[in-house]
Amino acid sequence: MPFISVEAVHPTHEQKGRLIAEITRIASEILELPQSSFYVLVKENDSDNWGVGGKQLSIILAEREK
Amino acid sequence: MPFISVEAVHPTHEQKGRLIAEITRIASEILELPQSSFYVLVKENDSDNWGVGGKQLSIILAEREK
Amino acid sequence: MPFISVEAVHPTHEQKGRLIAEITRIASEILELPQSSFYVLVKENDSDNWGVGGKQLSIILAEREK
Amino acid sequence: MPFISVEAVHPTHEQKGRLIAEITRIASEILELPQSSFYVLVKENDSDNWGVGGKQLSIILAEREK
Amino acid sequence: MPFISVEAVHPTHEQKGRLIAEITRIASEILELPQSSFYVLVKENDSDNWGVGGKQLSIILAEREK
Amino acid sequence: MPFISVEAVHPTHEQKGRLIAEITRIASEILELPQSSFYVLVKENDSDNWGVGGKQLSIILAEREK
Repeated sequence: MPFISVEAVHPTHEQKGRLIAEITRIASEILELPQSSFYVLVKENDSDNWGVGGKQLSIILAEREK
Repeated sequence: MPFISVEAVHPTHEQKGRLIAEITRIASEILELPQSSFYVLVKENDSDNWGVGGKQLSIILAEREK
Repeated sequence: MPFISVEAVHPTHEQKGRLIAEITRIASEILELPQSSFYVLVKENDSDNWGVGGKQLSIILAEREK
Repeated sequence: MPFISVEAVHPTHEQKGRLIAEITRIASEILELPQSSFYVLVKENDSDNWGVGGKQLSIILAEREK
Repeated sequence: MPFISVEAVHPTHEQKGRLIAEITRIASEILELPQSSFYVLVKENDSDNWGVGGKQLSIILAEREK
Repeated sequence: MPFISVEAVHPTHEQKGRLIAEITRIASEILELPQSSFYVLVKENDSDNWGVGGKQLSIILAEREK
């Protein structure tokens, strides 16, 4: 019954599929529980809503591109 | 002060209203706390972001419809 | 695949069992999904760790008992 | 490494920036950890998805405006 | 800045270390972000607090052992 | 109705009280909502359960002390 949530920005459809498949596989192996008992939830968030070290990620990214 | 969150796909307006009313009522009764102290939050997620047993729910649903 | 978490203080063994059974039953009915697809997780927290209106719940409760 | 999440309705761009900056600053000071180790995540939710005392916030707000 | 939480029962010290290392490695590879930007948090929960299909996991496990 | 959760290691009783009071005060001011509508929840986690950059925090801290 493990439940794994991944708070990210906006992964592509393919990245979400791979996160779900690979994280379930590896966690099922480590915890010795069947893959069928795992739920994985990918949560998407705008870079405007993420704060890293007190700064909005949207601003950090804009500054990097300069 | 209990806080209950419901990670779902996309319930309708009416389903959200019923989830909030019914879960609050039942949990208030069981925990013997006033309904006014409860917060319920319904979180919506695309089926693309849910992994069940290592597979994207969007793909599981598409396969079922075949 | 819904996942429901209940942030509470410390429910008894029996209250946890009832929360799990009753919330699953009602949510399954409202969302029209089988009960077997639901996970419910009861999270316990000391009243020292809950803040209500900016005040620790442990202090609010101690004041009420006076 | 603290991780702080703020479940709100829909703050403005400016409010999000201030929440991230101010909460990081104050929590860093209280916990005596560098600001660089903090992540803050602002989560947005429609008022339709919030339940307060068993009632949808969207309905509470609509009734207040009458 | 991704934040990954793993709601489990009680993994051993070694299992927690492996979950943290392996999930970070694979997610970093898929999302093309440096490992240093990842936080993983393993959350422990008694089987009494997990509900699977409306039943307490502690009871499901006790019945299996009979 | 905002709900703020703080995932930390193990703050002292006094630090928890200050986190609750200060975060509520600042967030209430920024979001222009009454303090009474805020819930803050401090979640404690062993350093064994935190992963930073793919490494257990307990191991990072032990290495620093050498």
